[in-house]
Amino acid sequence: MEKLYTIHNLWMLLCTMMVFILHLGFASLEAGFTQAKNGVNILFKNTIIPVIGILSFAYIGYNIMYPGEAYKGEWFGFKGIGIYQEIHEDPDHTYDDYFPFWAFVVFKAMFAATAATIVSGSVAERIKFNSFIIFSTIYVTLCYPVVGMWVWGGGFLSQMDIPFYDFSGASVVHSVGGWAALAGTIILGPRIGRFDKDEYNFIAGHSMPLAAIGIFLLWFGWFGFNGGSVFSADPLTISLVLLNTAIAGSAGAIGSWGCTWILVRKHDYSMFITGILGSLVSSTASADIVSPTKAGTIGIIAGVLVVLSIRIFDKLKIDDPVRAVSAHLTCGIWGTLAVGIYGEKAGWGQLSSQLIGIGLIGAFSFGASALIFYLLKKTIGIRVKPEVELEGLDMEEHGQHSYHGRYIKW
Amino acid sequence: MEKLYTIHNLWMLLCTMMVFILHLGFASLEAGFTQAKNGVNILFKNTIIPVIGILSFAYIGYNIMYPGEAYKGEWFGFKGIGIYQEIHEDPDHTYDDYFPFWAFVVFKAMFAATAATIVSGSVAERIKFNSFIIFSTIYVTLCYPVVGMWVWGGGFLSQMDIPFYDFSGASVVHSVGGWAALAGTIILGPRIGRFDKDEYNFIAGHSMPLAAIGIFLLWFGWFGFNGGSVFSADPLTISLVLLNTAIAGSAGAIGSWGCTWILVRKHDYSMFITGILGSLVSSTASADIVSPTKAGTIGIIAGVLVVLSIRIFDKLKIDDPVRAVSAHLTCGIWGTLAVGIYGEKAGWGQLSSQLIGIGLIGAFSFGASALIFYLLKKTIGIRVKPEVELEGLDMEEHGQHSYHGRYIKW
Amino acid sequence: MEKLYTIHNLWMLLCTMMVFILHLGFASLEAGFTQAKNGVNILFKNTIIPVIGILSFAYIGYNIMYPGEAYKGEWFGFKGIGIYQEIHEDPDHTYDDYFPFWAFVVFKAMFAATAATIVSGSVAERIKFNSFIIFSTIYVTLCYPVVGMWVWGGGFLSQMDIPFYDFSGASVVHSVGGWAALAGTIILGPRIGRFDKDEYNFIAGHSMPLAAIGIFLLWFGWFGFNGGSVFSADPLTISLVLLNTAIAGSAGAIGSWGCTWILVRKHDYSMFITGILGSLVSSTASADIVSPTKAGTIGIIAGVLVVLSIRIFDKLKIDDPVRAVSAHLTCGIWGTLAVGIYGEKAGWGQLSSQLIGIGLIGAFSFGASALIFYLLKKTIGIRVKPEVELEGLDMEEHGQHSYHGRYIKW
Repeated sequence: MEKLYTIHNLWMLLCTMMVFILHLGFASLEAGFTQAKNGVNILFKNTIIPVIGILSFAYIGYNIMYPGEAYKGEWFGFKGIGIYQEIHEDPDHTYDDYFPFWAFVVFKAMFAATAATIVSGSVAERIKFNSFIIFSTIYVTLCYPVVGMWVWGGGFLSQMDIPFYDFSGASVVHSVGGWAALAGTIILGPRIGRFDKDEYNFIAGHSMPLAAIGIFLLWFGWFGFNGGSVFSADPLTISLVLLNTAIAGSAGAIGSWGCTWILVRKHDYSMFITGILGSLVSSTASADIVSPTKAGTIGIIAGVLVVLSIRIFDKLKIDDPVRAVSAHLTCGIWGTLAVGIYGEKAGWGQLSSQLIGIGLIGAFSFGASALIFYLLKKTIGIRVKPEVELEGLDMEEHGQHSYHGRYIKW
Repeated sequence: MEKLYTIHNLWMLLCTMMVFILHLGFASLEAGFTQAKNGVNILFKNTIIPVIGILSFAYIGYNIMYPGEAYKGEWFGFKGIGIYQEIHEDPDHTYDDYFPFWAFVVFKAMFAATAATIVSGSVAERIKFNSFIIFSTIYVTLCYPVVGMWVWGGGFLSQMDIPFYDFSGASVVHSVGGWAALAGTIILGPRIGRFDKDEYNFIAGHSMPLAAIGIFLLWFGWFGFNGGSVFSADPLTISLVLLNTAIAGSAGAIGSWGCTWILVRKHDYSMFITGILGSLVSSTASADIVSPTKAGTIGIIAGVLVVLSIRIFDKLKIDDPVRAVSAHLTCGIWGTLAVGIYGEKAGWGQLSSQLIGIGLIGAFSFGASALIFYLLKKTIGIRVKPEVELEGLDMEEHGQHSYHGRYIKW
Repeated sequence: MEKLYTIHNLWMLLCTMMVFILHLGFASLEAGFTQAKNGVNILFKNTIIPVIGILSFAYIGYNIMYPGEAYKGEWFGFKGIGIYQEIHEDPDHTYDDYFPFWAFVVFKAMFAATAATIVSGSVAERIKFNSFIIFSTIYVTLCYPVVGMWVWGGGFLSQMDIPFYDFSGASVVHSVGGWAALAGTIILGPRIGRFDKDEYNFIAGHSMPLAAIGIFLLWFGWFGFNGGSVFSADPLTISLVLLNTAIAGSAGAIGSWGCTWILVRKHDYSMFITGILGSLVSSTASADIVSPTKAGTIGIIAGVLVVLSIRIFDKLKIDDPVRAVSAHLTCGIWGTLAVGIYGEKAGWGQLSSQLIGIGLIGAFSFGASALIFYLLKKTIGIRVKPEVELEGLDMEEHGQHSYHGRYIKW
């Protein structure tokens, strides 16, 4: 027993560290896909998000997401602020005898920050730094754990006759982040010049090498994101999950590559890697319960959906600089639905449970995030001045440039 | 038993993820060593190679490399297209009771893509994208697994009296890739302007920081590449392999640094890190059977050989933009030979087995790749137009620039 | 037993590989924080440091740091040059029955190189390459292992009544490196133009994205740096250590962010991430013996100290291009002291042991490094000519540029 406990724990910590690297993946991808004049701003947001996520989740979010027996409710529970554990105690091998409380907290805290990171891309290049920080802190501390509790903490979505199934967060993480990303970009409005003429003035990113580093590190981190959600080192399951994650991402790449080629006759790298990201998102709902071929099918469809979704949001004149909504929300919903089509209990029953979950999570996430953004807009404001937007946020907000920098005087 | 099984599997999956990062290492190194005007092209090729490798190896290559009892031949076998395993079954702990089939497939699939990646560097900055994709798909799907079967799948090279020994692929992966890289660059010819005058117009890469990220990630990935080839978490062996990988790479760095200093009296960073890469390649044949000091000796010689090999290919007017042939082929051959000099059964017997393997693998790999490249040249063509080559491939093939990009209109 | 042995060993090797990545973190951070004209120089130094560290520690440093019974002294011992182990022998499971000798050597060798890396940042942009290499080789081979022996190899600091406690090297690694970094920058003098006028002409780094990659990879590597120092995969301890490393870094980020905001009313990214680095340094002395909240307290104080320390060194006109002394020395001392405040045996007794250790290690490290730098200055010289410094070191020392490079003729 002690030995398996030691192995399970090692696996959880390994996955924790890989999810940490996921955040570098987001930072690189978002910085690469946006303009150099906002580079410091993007990097700062993507670095402070895990910082805030780790701290707030460890002390508050965890106690909402896993309120425990005494306080457990189907809709909301809260155990109080703090970390309730003595450092050398571990009386009951906290999580199903698989690993100690410390490992569970650090994994879930690293995980939690992902939801907020998704938002930073869609509101990039025009949101006020302070407003973004306030939004993210509230959202990751209070909103994400509530949804998490519904699905993973014993809440009502896990107690339906055919329980809503979301293996590692296609809905709980990616849709929750994606809905907020959508609310944010709608309330902010598009960047200056983005839809000026009757054509799409796509504003190109400044560094494809950065974006490439981003997508590889995201994929790497995803192995930990999906792998750790097994919550044990069970050989058959974690091996299947990793193979499925590899196959899904590869299939999504093929899907978006092919779809883009048909549409524009170019091998568009930014679409290609966004397709990988979207298919990784779609894999998260079911990576532990489908065969590799089904994982690949879900992935290739996600790759196509990303491209179509990007086109639709462009037509709707919704400006999403890094295409976060298409990758995380569209593919998050698709992945969640796919459980009802390809999962072990595929059928109308499972499908309707998935739809209920998608609807409720969507209503709550979009509503809560829109409310927070609206309140911020009415109080401290959420958008920088036009002249700051045109010149770039780096000097105004951060006093430094991303390249060959000048600094404010210290 | 169950517990060791769980540990072995965890190690294999860890190494799988590290080999995944090896591909980011290749992408970064190749992009850094080439010109910014071809950046998107290089990145796309290096991202799609693992995508294609994972899919094709899982469904086809695996069944050629490990044809199984029923179909086993000494030269060629094929089990059919598909993944032959139910998702929750693992009756026989597939690979020697050490880990499930899923882990074996995902590790070997990640591994397989490496061979094709090697080619992308030597043909960089002038090959047509579609031709490269077709070549790579055929080569990684059909040619690499055949050689792999000869050595690792029970084929004839493993059945000689003194079996050909190649621990993790100095020949099976690196020479196989290196021979194709050589065939490709010869058939394509040098880049415009490379050997115009009576001097070597070395075309400098555009980003040494990218190259630096590349070599570190390659070395990191190599720990998984060599470590995973132990196919168990046996403490003594995997620890020795990692120490040898660290020592060999370090010694190779010293070798190429010193050799370059003697030749040009500069501390040339691109030579220095190519020496690291070459010595890592040379370590792959024997990292599990030699002492750290012998691993270091093999590595330092590899570091010197890389520099001399680069000089020779320059004199032969063979243009290899990222020096892939010197790093992978020259050092792959040297590492394979070194088994006969430093290995446990060192001597003429082992040495002649190694030579037979080197010769046969070389003849097959060079022949097959030259044939594919030749057929592509005679049909759809393999080289972009001169004006595209001079302007860079990014806009023509991909519709976007690597930096501060403009995009094609969507 | 065999099974736990296999797990402990796997953990040590995993941490070894993560500490390897720490070096890429240093390379990226230092290159990002300095000017493009010295990029190749910075990258070369940061790549060759682990190379030299691995080789010299495996063959020499290890035998000073762990001189063994026969030669053990309280102040100095040396077992001789070489690796004393047959490759397939492991009679006594070398390190407390937890993992073989090979794993211990490769982990500690990877670890050793860190101390020398710290120096490279503070002497950047003006030190002669050869002088730096000679200094680093001597320092990591001879000086670092002596201090290591005092604390971890059975030396006198570990034999006091209340032993000096330094979990993973706040003093042994970071202060040892930090003192040498301070000696180096004082003896070299500031870069041309740095303190010309009566104001601080801060010389800005050239790439914040590189610096961002750096800080994420440093944090990632730190999980291995602290995690591996447990020297077993004990679930409770390694989980606590990882959680503490995550919380400490996050708290440090908040500390430096807030402190900088108060001082200059900008969200300064370079200060923000230097605060993360400083708090990670401060966590190393006690990550295994304090609660997450105490780790966070130590971290947030470190974040503030980094900013204040940078200001003080600026006022003293001590030029430290990447602020290595503030991050490693100031926070290394603070972390070491914190053991006496927050550790399990907190109190005047522990505090005075910590002070004795800090003083002796400081005297030896600063003295030894100043002596080496002084001797180099008096013989081969340590500073490049002013015209080389102004033009950048890359072409003179390395014959190549970091971006869009021209090369020396081969």
